[in-house]
Amino acid sequence: MLQQEVLPITISSEAEAKYPLLDRIEYPQDLRQLSPEELPQLCAEIRSFMLEALSVNPGHLGANLGAVEITVAMHYVFDTPQDRIVWDVGHQAYVHKILTGRKHAFHTLRKWGGLAGFPTPTESEYDTFSAGHASNSISAALGMAVATALKHEDRRVVAFIGDGAMSGGMAFEGLNNASSFPNNLLVILNDNNMSIDHNVGGLNKHMVNLLTNPTYNSMRYDMYRMLRKLHIVKEGQRKDLQRFNNRVKALLSGQSNFFDSFSIRYLGPTDGHDVVHLVQILQDIRDMKGPRLLHISTTKGKGYQPAEQDPTVWHAPGKFDPLTGKRVIAKSAAPKPPKYQDVFGHTLVELAGEDERIVAVTPAMPTGCSMNYMMEAYPNRSFDVGIAEEHAVTFSSGMATEGFIPVCNIYSTFMQRAYDQLIHDVALTNSHVVFCLDRAGLVGEDGATHQGAFDIAYLRTIPGMTICSPYDEVQLRHLLRSACFDWQGPVAIRYPRGEGSTIDWQQPMHTHPHGKARVLKEGQDLTFLSFGPIGHSVTKVVDRLQGEGYSVGHIDLVFAKPLDEACITHVLREAQNVITIEEGCLNGGVGSGILQLAMEHGLSPRIKCLGLPDEFIAHGTPQQQRQYCGLDEESMYQEAKQLLAHHN
Amino acid sequence: MLQQEVLPITISSEAEAKYPLLDRIEYPQDLRQLSPEELPQLCAEIRSFMLEALSVNPGHLGANLGAVEITVAMHYVFDTPQDRIVWDVGHQAYVHKILTGRKHAFHTLRKWGGLAGFPTPTESEYDTFSAGHASNSISAALGMAVATALKHEDRRVVAFIGDGAMSGGMAFEGLNNASSFPNNLLVILNDNNMSIDHNVGGLNKHMVNLLTNPTYNSMRYDMYRMLRKLHIVKEGQRKDLQRFNNRVKALLSGQSNFFDSFSIRYLGPTDGHDVVHLVQILQDIRDMKGPRLLHISTTKGKGYQPAEQDPTVWHAPGKFDPLTGKRVIAKSAAPKPPKYQDVFGHTLVELAGEDERIVAVTPAMPTGCSMNYMMEAYPNRSFDVGIAEEHAVTFSSGMATEGFIPVCNIYSTFMQRAYDQLIHDVALTNSHVVFCLDRAGLVGEDGATHQGAFDIAYLRTIPGMTICSPYDEVQLRHLLRSACFDWQGPVAIRYPRGEGSTIDWQQPMHTHPHGKARVLKEGQDLTFLSFGPIGHSVTKVVDRLQGEGYSVGHIDLVFAKPLDEACITHVLREAQNVITIEEGCLNGGVGSGILQLAMEHGLSPRIKCLGLPDEFIAHGTPQQQRQYCGLDEESMYQEAKQLLAHHN
Repeated sequence: MLQQEVLPITISSEAEAKYPLLDRIEYPQDLRQLSPEELPQLCAEIRSFMLEALSVNPGHLGANLGAVEITVAMHYVFDTPQDRIVWDVGHQAYVHKILTGRKHAFHTLRKWGGLAGFPTPTESEYDTFSAGHASNSISAALGMAVATALKHEDRRVVAFIGDGAMSGGMAFEGLNNASSFPNNLLVILNDNNMSIDHNVGGLNKHMVNLLTNPTYNSMRYDMYRMLRKLHIVKEGQRKDLQRFNNRVKALLSGQSNFFDSFSIRYLGPTDGHDVVHLVQILQDIRDMKGPRLLHISTTKGKGYQPAEQDPTVWHAPGKFDPLTGKRVIAKSAAPKPPKYQDVFGHTLVELAGEDERIVAVTPAMPTGCSMNYMMEAYPNRSFDVGIAEEHAVTFSSGMATEGFIPVCNIYSTFMQRAYDQLIHDVALTNSHVVFCLDRAGLVGEDGATHQGAFDIAYLRTIPGMTICSPYDEVQLRHLLRSACFDWQGPVAIRYPRGEGSTIDWQQPMHTHPHGKARVLKEGQDLTFLSFGPIGHSVTKVVDRLQGEGYSVGHIDLVFAKPLDEACITHVLREAQNVITIEEGCLNGGVGSGILQLAMEHGLSPRIKCLGLPDEFIAHGTPQQQRQYCGLDEESMYQEAKQLLAHHN
Repeated sequence: MLQQEVLPITISSEAEAKYPLLDRIEYPQDLRQLSPEELPQLCAEIRSFMLEALSVNPGHLGANLGAVEITVAMHYVFDTPQDRIVWDVGHQAYVHKILTGRKHAFHTLRKWGGLAGFPTPTESEYDTFSAGHASNSISAALGMAVATALKHEDRRVVAFIGDGAMSGGMAFEGLNNASSFPNNLLVILNDNNMSIDHNVGGLNKHMVNLLTNPTYNSMRYDMYRMLRKLHIVKEGQRKDLQRFNNRVKALLSGQSNFFDSFSIRYLGPTDGHDVVHLVQILQDIRDMKGPRLLHISTTKGKGYQPAEQDPTVWHAPGKFDPLTGKRVIAKSAAPKPPKYQDVFGHTLVELAGEDERIVAVTPAMPTGCSMNYMMEAYPNRSFDVGIAEEHAVTFSSGMATEGFIPVCNIYSTFMQRAYDQLIHDVALTNSHVVFCLDRAGLVGEDGATHQGAFDIAYLRTIPGMTICSPYDEVQLRHLLRSACFDWQGPVAIRYPRGEGSTIDWQQPMHTHPHGKARVLKEGQDLTFLSFGPIGHSVTKVVDRLQGEGYSVGHIDLVFAKPLDEACITHVLREAQNVITIEEGCLNGGVGSGILQLAMEHGLSPRIKCLGLPDEFIAHGTPQQQRQYCGLDEESMYQEAKQLLAHHN
């Protein structure tokens, strides 16, 4: 559908007041002092403000540029925080943060001790619910709306959800319940036809159809407005309105839609960049009774040419020059190690070239996990299933049943969504699916909602599951290959976000024996048992202690399950002190597995388990987070010294 | 819609051949020798056979009586096992088992070493995928169908799903993907308007509308058949057919439906008890291209009057007299302890009467978990959300946000579906929701898919989660009350299926201090640390060892998280030997928590952890399963003796 052009963004470095309207706004009550006619100008100022801020302090740009008008309109029309706005995913809530008392702290966004990148109830009363994992907003908001109705309060509740998040099964469960209990929930569907990558799925096609054939619905809405102005229909005449709607529907078109199937009143689609019109609409529908959905059409990156043109890149572009739109790509004189993601992506293509049984599955993260290389090389064997982790896992298992070798890549934190499917649809049938858990461990700026903290522990509960993690990029290649061709049953390979340690990574792959740890070093005084790339820091600590005259051993466990019983019990028998290290929660993690092994074999050396504490770890750099958790080199060194002092 | 009457069931105890047609059938190829006209008689025989078998060996009756015709028709028309049938939930697959080589083993159903109650790939090549948890069939079958298309095989793949399972978000994710990749998946929607209890939700209403207004669709199908007979349309003319369908659609009615939104061809609704017609339809649509859905209408309990009249009771009626329809309710002279479920249900009503902030949430299990008492007493504060565990958890958290105290009851095995929601939507916001995990531990006859094996371990990973379990029914009351009124944040109370130990359970409730264990007995030689009702068996073992002269202690942990550090470290310091006992998986369980505590405090008594081994535990009686896992009294006693012998 055609969208209104928004006012141009002004980028200037002059000291003069650049934000005459925004400067007057700290909280939504200030916003409500503006006239509707001033809102387009305010939106332009907000865009400039965000561009300037995010160009030096990276964050999610595209989605927020697309949500400027609707966010302004919501806070203008609804009585927040008394009325509730529940954000879905929430990386599009920057404008919301700017308008709700956090403008001056905006430069601290995603920094340690600063504002979170997602709505966070502990940060502000305007953040009504936690957001970060897609598709939860309708359920949470419905809970609030039903509660409000039960208490006979006149609070309004809005769920704000993108079309990408709408493909998650949980959103469906929420919609399916929306008409079951008395409530006045308003769902706003922010349809930009994108997740981080392009959207997929039947429902997406259907929504595109709604957007491109809007006659019926917009006519319905416009007629309703006209009739209401003429006092032919009044608010509160719910039954009449329903009848009227049905009449108009019957008159104008035979087109029905998805949302009608849930007995939810569907309104729209409408232009999500016409802020004056949005205010009008929201005022009209604000106090309608019963659950209803407003479908708005927006453009990711709206108002900023580079972001509109390449929305996937500008989803979270890093630093950039706002004037030229040139992204700042850090260049170093020396060549850098690759990202684990790219090693995964390129290696997958190599393996797929070798064996046509290899297929690839991702739930809406082809770019994030670098499966896009596979999608280019083997489009027919690559399956982006949309935001749908549960389906991704079971779909993979179905393909495995028919003899394929699916490589299913899901971020550690999102795999939590498919825990049951791993147990019931994969492990029970011992399906040979290779799961790659990207962004395992501490993820940095995305913070508490996105930490890959729990996967080792939750995967260890699952019978027959192999869990491994590479020490470096080269080992990732060995493990991926071995998992595909040499091992049986379900396998999970976890690795972190970002770059590793090995520049010369493109080495020939070989088979890693299933369940075998690697002895990097033997030592008498103390032995480290580390799991995954954190082993690199351990290596440095070992060297340092060695320099001080200690005899220190180091085992790279490689496997969290099955544990290499022979190797580990040998260490537990010989070493005086043992430190286990993992970038995962201590409860149920590798360390607890080592303790179980010690117990079973009646061995009791002094053991210290290091890992993530039993709390949610906030946003910051991974290094800050590691320090907080005692997983940086210095902390490990101090732990070792303490253990050794105790011993000597 | 009107349904065909089925032939009457003959129940007789005579020795004559009661099943003339069924006797000729071992495998589907035998079935395919029958003429279509013989199928109604076969269906009647199958009904009789099932009734006789299930009347003495209890199982799921209602759903299977409803699925006789469609199961016969599927195996008659499809070339199983070369063609794949994927069952959803699968407790309606008894007819399938009878027709696929397992008729003679049918009397071993759900018994230790016998046939599983659900399709199980290790049991038969006709069981293509694991079933038990609802809503996974479309994803699994789509994986198979896409694999088949990729390999250019002409295998046909059918997902058979009930309308209850259709409310699970995962089914939606599968549907939403069905048109994204080339495949010829056929989904058969078996619509009996029931889960175990009555169905709820917007989609359910929509499907009822489709059933009660079938004109358009059935006309469309009938016209298609007619035109095909006249060779006006031919199979393979996909585009023409599509156009034809669209034309007919446009001509006949403006009614569109849910499935059209996914670009899935919708066929039906049609009578699911007219076996001859079903065969005809399946033959017609068997080789259609592209994903499509056949909507059939069936009646739970069909053909057996008592089961048709009260489908919830006859979902799994236990033993009964097939002639009279009288259920055999075991009566004992002495009064029996109540089921934990009923203690939960009645106590909830008491608490709800005390405080109107208490609300109750269940995903489609009001009868199973005894929330039906609450639904009767406080219908406005009781929320059956349908099969939708993810939504149930987040919806509860939304209500908690607005000041209610939701008690959300989900079976332990099904809570696996909502693991991410517990972390992201409950624990992150520290929402005060009381989760009751019913059927925790070994569940008996439902077997591997339904064991409540993992909850302690997966819940222990979650920051801020309280996990407790009652020693007996009275303690369940104390814990439930304390969780609602005295404790903060998220709480999980786990308890087993079935009856407990205390006849006089309706005692006044008191507050249990948060995180406090109970010292049942002190002892020097050995101390048991037990979690939950299994403590009763431990008590008996303690008495037995006591009788042999040992000094044996016993701690009822009450909490798996937080552990009572003071109490436990005292034991670890004083006791020579410690045995931890839990009916949950050892990896990450309470025992591993005790080991962590010992490690942190530098304590190393001899510790033995008992719990469920790292494998899936098959169906049988709970007692057989406990023996297998070493959790029966005798096994515990032997473990204790071994530890004591080693010591002395």
